[in-house]
Amino acid sequence: MDWLDTSIMRTRGTAQGRTPDTHELTEAKQGKYHYTIGPYSDPVLHVRPGDRVVVETRDAFEGAIQTEQDLPSRVLSMPFVNPQNGPIMVEGARKGDVIAVHIESMAPRGPNPRGTCAMIPHFGALSGTSLTALLTDPLPEIVRKIDVDEQGVYWSRRVTLPYRPHIGTLSCSPEIDSINTLTPDAHGGNMDLPDMGPGSITYLPVRADGGRLFIGDAHACQGDGEVCGTAVEYASTTTFQVDLIKGWSLEWPRLENEAVIMAIGSARPLEDATRIAYRELILWMEAEYGYDRWDAYMMLSQCGQVRLGNFVDPKYTVGAAIRKTYLA
Amino acid sequence: MDWLDTSIMRTRGTAQGRTPDTHELTEAKQGKYHYTIGPYSDPVLHVRPGDRVVVETRDAFEGAIQTEQDLPSRVLSMPFVNPQNGPIMVEGARKGDVIAVHIESMAPRGPNPRGTCAMIPHFGALSGTSLTALLTDPLPEIVRKIDVDEQGVYWSRRVTLPYRPHIGTLSCSPEIDSINTLTPDAHGGNMDLPDMGPGSITYLPVRADGGRLFIGDAHACQGDGEVCGTAVEYASTTTFQVDLIKGWSLEWPRLENEAVIMAIGSARPLEDATRIAYRELILWMEAEYGYDRWDAYMMLSQCGQVRLGNFVDPKYTVGAAIRKTYLA
Amino acid sequence: MDWLDTSIMRTRGTAQGRTPDTHELTEAKQGKYHYTIGPYSDPVLHVRPGDRVVVETRDAFEGAIQTEQDLPSRVLSMPFVNPQNGPIMVEGARKGDVIAVHIESMAPRGPNPRGTCAMIPHFGALSGTSLTALLTDPLPEIVRKIDVDEQGVYWSRRVTLPYRPHIGTLSCSPEIDSINTLTPDAHGGNMDLPDMGPGSITYLPVRADGGRLFIGDAHACQGDGEVCGTAVEYASTTTFQVDLIKGWSLEWPRLENEAVIMAIGSARPLEDATRIAYRELILWMEAEYGYDRWDAYMMLSQCGQVRLGNFVDPKYTVGAAIRKTYLA
Amino acid sequence: MDWLDTSIMRTRGTAQGRTPDTHELTEAKQGKYHYTIGPYSDPVLHVRPGDRVVVETRDAFEGAIQTEQDLPSRVLSMPFVNPQNGPIMVEGARKGDVIAVHIESMAPRGPNPRGTCAMIPHFGALSGTSLTALLTDPLPEIVRKIDVDEQGVYWSRRVTLPYRPHIGTLSCSPEIDSINTLTPDAHGGNMDLPDMGPGSITYLPVRADGGRLFIGDAHACQGDGEVCGTAVEYASTTTFQVDLIKGWSLEWPRLENEAVIMAIGSARPLEDATRIAYRELILWMEAEYGYDRWDAYMMLSQCGQVRLGNFVDPKYTVGAAIRKTYLA
Repeated sequence: MDWLDTSIMRTRGTAQGRTPDTHELTEAKQGKYHYTIGPYSDPVLHVRPGDRVVVETRDAFEGAIQTEQDLPSRVLSMPFVNPQNGPIMVEGARKGDVIAVHIESMAPRGPNPRGTCAMIPHFGALSGTSLTALLTDPLPEIVRKIDVDEQGVYWSRRVTLPYRPHIGTLSCSPEIDSINTLTPDAHGGNMDLPDMGPGSITYLPVRADGGRLFIGDAHACQGDGEVCGTAVEYASTTTFQVDLIKGWSLEWPRLENEAVIMAIGSARPLEDATRIAYRELILWMEAEYGYDRWDAYMMLSQCGQVRLGNFVDPKYTVGAAIRKTYLA
Repeated sequence: MDWLDTSIMRTRGTAQGRTPDTHELTEAKQGKYHYTIGPYSDPVLHVRPGDRVVVETRDAFEGAIQTEQDLPSRVLSMPFVNPQNGPIMVEGARKGDVIAVHIESMAPRGPNPRGTCAMIPHFGALSGTSLTALLTDPLPEIVRKIDVDEQGVYWSRRVTLPYRPHIGTLSCSPEIDSINTLTPDAHGGNMDLPDMGPGSITYLPVRADGGRLFIGDAHACQGDGEVCGTAVEYASTTTFQVDLIKGWSLEWPRLENEAVIMAIGSARPLEDATRIAYRELILWMEAEYGYDRWDAYMMLSQCGQVRLGNFVDPKYTVGAAIRKTYLA
Repeated sequence: MDWLDTSIMRTRGTAQGRTPDTHELTEAKQGKYHYTIGPYSDPVLHVRPGDRVVVETRDAFEGAIQTEQDLPSRVLSMPFVNPQNGPIMVEGARKGDVIAVHIESMAPRGPNPRGTCAMIPHFGALSGTSLTALLTDPLPEIVRKIDVDEQGVYWSRRVTLPYRPHIGTLSCSPEIDSINTLTPDAHGGNMDLPDMGPGSITYLPVRADGGRLFIGDAHACQGDGEVCGTAVEYASTTTFQVDLIKGWSLEWPRLENEAVIMAIGSARPLEDATRIAYRELILWMEAEYGYDRWDAYMMLSQCGQVRLGNFVDPKYTVGAAIRKTYLA
Repeated sequence: MDWLDTSIMRTRGTAQGRTPDTHELTEAKQGKYHYTIGPYSDPVLHVRPGDRVVVETRDAFEGAIQTEQDLPSRVLSMPFVNPQNGPIMVEGARKGDVIAVHIESMAPRGPNPRGTCAMIPHFGALSGTSLTALLTDPLPEIVRKIDVDEQGVYWSRRVTLPYRPHIGTLSCSPEIDSINTLTPDAHGGNMDLPDMGPGSITYLPVRADGGRLFIGDAHACQGDGEVCGTAVEYASTTTFQVDLIKGWSLEWPRLENEAVIMAIGSARPLEDATRIAYRELILWMEAEYGYDRWDAYMMLSQCGQVRLGNFVDPKYTVGAAIRKTYLA
């Protein structure tokens, strides 16, 4: 049996086998991309639970870096980076619900070298930044253009990395805030979590009518922490299915794949992101998997899995997971 | 000579002795108060540089806590707290300018006990919180109603505290974000800095046309750090003068009073807030007071003054100051 | 070919195929266990590079918790916990060298239930602690005794965890400090890193003559972060081989296994531990694997692996790793 | 009446008006200075409660920086910096007691320029450091030699700073750890707190027989946070009186002067240092000044005073204080 049939999305979603429509959200249809995630923008698409969306995401630099000579400090204009598709309205979604996003596939778009990685001045984990404000000089500004296809990420003559695509930024709208697309928080946002690729389902808390789903920031691959500040950023055609789970009130996003369930936290310092993730996982095990709170806490101390998403964005993102075999 | 005549506001502002108009921004005129600071709300007032505004601020609980039996968990509805007056449009303000806010006076409003301090569950520096997420029980939920007048804050039979009024939340709008009124950041916001009272001038970076000034969250007094999470919150009549400084591009808010100049940073962890404040102060001394950068850095290591605003809000706020006598 | 033959230990160590002696370090021979790691204690064993040591480690509670009624607050006396075997003197080790510790096997000792996990008041990642000092009540004090053998860790009727033994605390002596055995730092110490089990080689900087190797704190398994504060602590018979690498001057411990090389950092906040680990890994790739510094930085942003050791000890521990296939 | 007569030291100390002896601890008598604070070194002096000690402290660079050409990277050899006088044994001091150190006077020693301030590579709050490990270049290495006398600190032609002497490093020994003199912690150590000057009494927890008092690191003045990493370091003749308070079991050092009582915490991140300081202050008010815990917590939120000692040492130091007028 396909694991999907036992997923939370399938067993608790309102689609329940309804024949899905497929919606195309091309660059042309999207028109203006968004740099904040909030309740103040106009919807580009209305879908029903169970529907499939095929979306053309732009890369995090909105295509402005075409060659290794296109330095970020010259071609980018803050805060107009990390463009998002959306908002997509999901029929019936209300505050206190959850929108499930099952990523089915991600294919690269555009001519090669279509992947971009950059060291941006005063950005990245091993540099002074706007928040860890120092008097040091910036690191060198370097752009790497990288060929990407579904067989690999051709980093250098020496190294070919596996193609491990995932979505860097995914969210429903906050209730009243409108948050720039560089920042992850309780709504989701720029989590940069490598687990959020094909085969994953992300559960996003709904805080505004219709949920107002935003998606963007595809990565062809990314290491834990995204240490230099950027992944292999690329334009993608991403296909995902949406569902709606009524009356599941979450504080923070969650994720599920074949092997694990994962709670996600975003905060500074990094231990606070990790605390959020573990606490949410424990409360989840208690509420839905028959665990005593303290048993869950002590057992995760023996088998919990931590993924560092990013420690370069305005808030850092951590996922805490447990294998599903321990939940049976 | 009045120190004001030598202030940055007076010497560089565009008002330049223009006879000010005075505007009243009463509760009635304000109508709907705001819970986010951003570019998406409708102006309530238009003023010109040099004008005076007399504003009726509501307390951070919007008056919902009238007795010590009105527990926050029952009478408050997040995120609808810390209501702000505004936005006030300042004629001529454009991105890259600064709006100066000189607070002239703050008087308490309403019947006594008009001051409120509360321990709110899972809030405050010595409790687990939504961000420092723990499995601990909340601390007791306690409300204190306190008589306040311009002679004192009548904390208890044992202790009368001095009346040291200041504005907790002050900001221009961010460029594209709309930020809840609990959070301080580079736009200003909920800094909770005791220095921001009568006799101070705050310099706020303008990032949206007209600046879009917001003000609220009056405190009758507050200790360094606002450790339990709230000050003596009260409704005030606050009088301030606005001016506009063209072409002064700031990353973070700054402050001036008779004795010091102060740079302000808000971030987590607390050392990052402090780093921002000190770096901005050093760059300020270098740019405008004839200091070599390294001389400023080394000298502040001998005479810099640090104020902890808050370490309870979603970001922590620190001011770093130097006495004006060292700038002569 | 065995990967060990290509390891740093084998290719650069001074043993070079010398026939090893095997030393027993039983409880009786150890006599007094140690609660600090430093240069002030008397050696219990002298070995030569290449020698094998079979050591009887005590559990972190020094056997004081025999039943689930033996509460830590009653039976433990701080700081006399986490007892260490050693110091073991390695012939020829001088400041500026590295001692390699190849863990060959770890077997449980003593009658079942021989594994112990405890929630200790004001300890653990989701509680106020002595350092994250709050006014909250402690979490419940709970002891779990667990059967352990080489086939599994019998956590509950519902869950059997895999036996994944590793050493929690491993170090050479600091140069002048003597550091309690709960704290990890640049010398190693209480890193609580699940990778440090059979099949791993840990490289420890030597800062005192003979290195003064300490070892203890065996875990039958541990999740990422050791969230409740303790692993499945147990007494072990651990067999390891020692070697000496002359003139390899490290700031922080490093680790190697068949798949990866890993740099290890311990600090607070957690991002600083992660920064140390990644910086050391980059400098390692630059110094010894022909990588340009910035290429290494950008590439790890795509394929770096982060392990959270602990975020409960006085300093937090993180390992940053890269697959050896990318170093060929 | 002299406030000293009402101090904790005088009212609870065991000296009780005993005629004090005065001990000289000259450089010659000290002989070898110490670079760790612990239980493993030999006493240089035995005193009785109430005695006065006149000690010749060396500067933090042990006099190795005589001119502005003596760069730290050339003349210093880590970890042999910040030399300490001591250990001084106080008769009758046992674990669970407190040693009170009343600093009476501090006079500069040696020929001018006797003050030294340095920017040390990869040290200081606005640089990457060994713990906040980055890939950035170091800031410039700069030494400033400064004339100091009891009338002022002659920083530059432009600025003379007030002479505000204080002791940077003060401690009793930990129980089993021996801690390098750069690190503050629960034993005291390198707190770099400007309040610790003449007219202050510091209360240090005793954890080893005799207390084993260490003192050093005199500063002619220092700003909040010691932002560049060093104060105006100088050699001093410091006179202090010691007393012993039996059965006062403290977790962290405390301080008293004419105006305030202050609790001191040292940790990273900086909010944890602040939490420790405030929690200890609240527990102190509860235990000894008749305050309800929650009343103290809420009142400090209105009148607590925070001093940032340092945010450059391996742990950061914060003092939280309340005015004595509120304790009456």
